[in-house]
Amino acid sequence: MYDHHTLLYFSHRLYSHELTLEENKQIYGKCINQHGHNYVLEVSVKGAVDPKTGMFINITELKSIIATEVLDILDHRTLEDLEPLKGIVTTTENVAVWIWGALHKKLGNLLFEVKIEETEKNFVIYRGE
Amino acid sequence: MYDHHTLLYFSHRLYSHELTLEENKQIYGKCINQHGHNYVLEVSVKGAVDPKTGMFINITELKSIIATEVLDILDHRTLEDLEPLKGIVTTTENVAVWIWGALHKKLGNLLFEVKIEETEKNFVIYRGE
Amino acid sequence: MYDHHTLLYFSHRLYSHELTLEENKQIYGKCINQHGHNYVLEVSVKGAVDPKTGMFINITELKSIIATEVLDILDHRTLEDLEPLKGIVTTTENVAVWIWGALHKKLGNLLFEVKIEETEKNFVIYRGE
Amino acid sequence: MYDHHTLLYFSHRLYSHELTLEENKQIYGKCINQHGHNYVLEVSVKGAVDPKTGMFINITELKSIIATEVLDILDHRTLEDLEPLKGIVTTTENVAVWIWGALHKKLGNLLFEVKIEETEKNFVIYRGE
Amino acid sequence: MYDHHTLLYFSHRLYSHELTLEENKQIYGKCINQHGHNYVLEVSVKGAVDPKTGMFINITELKSIIATEVLDILDHRTLEDLEPLKGIVTTTENVAVWIWGALHKKLGNLLFEVKIEETEKNFVIYRGE
Amino acid sequence: MYDHHTLLYFSHRLYSHELTLEENKQIYGKCINQHGHNYVLEVSVKGAVDPKTGMFINITELKSIIATEVLDILDHRTLEDLEPLKGIVTTTENVAVWIWGALHKKLGNLLFEVKIEETEKNFVIYRGE
Repeated sequence: MYDHHTLLYFSHRLYSHELTLEENKQIYGKCINQHGHNYVLEVSVKGAVDPKTGMFINITELKSIIATEVLDILDHRTLEDLEPLKGIVTTTENVAVWIWGALHKKLGNLLFEVKIEETEKNFVIYRGE
Repeated sequence: MYDHHTLLYFSHRLYSHELTLEENKQIYGKCINQHGHNYVLEVSVKGAVDPKTGMFINITELKSIIATEVLDILDHRTLEDLEPLKGIVTTTENVAVWIWGALHKKLGNLLFEVKIEETEKNFVIYRGE
Repeated sequence: MYDHHTLLYFSHRLYSHELTLEENKQIYGKCINQHGHNYVLEVSVKGAVDPKTGMFINITELKSIIATEVLDILDHRTLEDLEPLKGIVTTTENVAVWIWGALHKKLGNLLFEVKIEETEKNFVIYRGE
Repeated sequence: MYDHHTLLYFSHRLYSHELTLEENKQIYGKCINQHGHNYVLEVSVKGAVDPKTGMFINITELKSIIATEVLDILDHRTLEDLEPLKGIVTTTENVAVWIWGALHKKLGNLLFEVKIEETEKNFVIYRGE
Repeated sequence: MYDHHTLLYFSHRLYSHELTLEENKQIYGKCINQHGHNYVLEVSVKGAVDPKTGMFINITELKSIIATEVLDILDHRTLEDLEPLKGIVTTTENVAVWIWGALHKKLGNLLFEVKIEETEKNFVIYRGE
Repeated sequence: MYDHHTLLYFSHRLYSHELTLEENKQIYGKCINQHGHNYVLEVSVKGAVDPKTGMFINITELKSIIATEVLDILDHRTLEDLEPLKGIVTTTENVAVWIWGALHKKLGNLLFEVKIEETEKNFVIYRGE
């Protein structure tokens, strides 16, 4: 298993348009205000070591996939304004599922886990199910 | 999977009353003296994302369960003096099993893992089996 | 010297209205887009230990000053929308100077240093001059 | 300047025998109960680099001084029970001053700073004045 | 599960003698030059808690096995010069597999996982398959 | 004060050609063998905030100076083989002084501090005197 971590910075708010303002306040607290984070994104791939190179995957290639499929879209943006995230409440859970989907298109079964560290204290892990 | 980490501070010693002083010294070394730790406790829950809220569990609720079931009992205490830990040698392994039990009563199958970081170098993980 | 660290989360963009779009792009790069951060704020106070209590300052009091003067204003907000930061480009340097001013009103000469860790790699330190 | 960090683990409580129980509760909160910590101790020395060795001080020597003067006395102990700390409220501030004194006897003017990280969020720094 | 982490420091280069210089450059980039690392090695063991001691394994014993089987061989060395690693391209993946083998001889089924953190951003995990 | 941290990886050994093998062993221990490190390099600059940009120095410019003056020379190399370090015992202290000199040529009085974290436990700080 190979793990690579990257940082991304974005602005978002937690607000569901299917709920009333009161319900949103109760569920999301002060996260209904526009704010932002340093997300630490850890992407794990799993596979056999190539006997020729001694590597699972070339890390340069993995970094380039993460850059194109995730960073170029989410980094330094307001999540709610992005076409691919339209209509989703941008909780860490939902963002993790979205990132999994985006990487899975390129990595297929090599992809093992997507982990997001939203703060020093809270993490979400998604393994595709 | 959702992971939340909390800190707790307590005093303890490792000493089994079923062993002689010599055996205790040999097994636990200087840990037979009263001392203490900053435990980093990581609690992981696992489940389906609620499509309405985009969350596994409301983190405010999870924090409140950890506070009531674990912190209010162990934090800023001497473990050997506590009724629920009577007769247990308070190794990290045994404390992890006890915390699992305390949280499982409230979280049931949502609970996935209890991890304790006793020092920068030593960790214990318990998943209920 | 006593150091306490706190986290705050906000949305901002780096954009000076006294510069052209081209100049903004050249100076601030992709930070001209709305995005956000987990700021780690470290506040240091310096003074004599009170012989009665063995403390510089009661940490409960220090936390309460940081909460009222800084967190209640900046946390979970868009910095550009805030009255007290109007007209300031919200670089880490400028935010550090603003936080210093806000805390100095309450802490006076006890205040020694304000440090902001914007990312794992970049820090700004301000000591009032 | 050369910085070396070490860990020590002990049990203590914050309680002044010159104050009433009520006053102790108000000042120290739940820290009046016996509890413990992982202290991260950082010792900084400052001096000229020896041109022959390219070092300020041999780190093996520095570690040995910290072990003899600090760890052998405080580590895996209850601070209140220790002869050299008798009558002192064992706040981080007071322990830092005590450690400074203990190291200064051996290191003299080479000693620059003693820093204690009591938790992830709270630090005390002492430079001998 | 019990996790213990240790540091080791060595010199190495990534270069396969079955590939041309051009192919080596393309696959390993500047890692074809002799350089080195601080490896953080995390060894996890898994088993039943011994009811007598309240521990999986005595940590003193685990540390001594890691010292004898891994540190004494790899630490403060040039990996390519070592007899047991002859002919292996010393990628983190290959070193992890080698460390697993070395520890498995002593720990058998207690051994659960070998994790190497090569830099702050890259990790390799091996579980024996 | 602005702080930026970077990583570099190299191979080195501690060995003075003006000392006997026995003296080298006694002073440097197992560091006389070729080994390597992940150096965390923190460069601090200090100056007035430019009122137009709200920044001390553009971080892109600072990163580019660190890359050209330090990383391009030391990173992924064997320190003893490098022309600019010839004849120096490559202790962390000596490398810090060398890096200070290399950066000072470009940064002048803006440069405040060079800090190297050689391992999790050992740091060297140099401020030009």
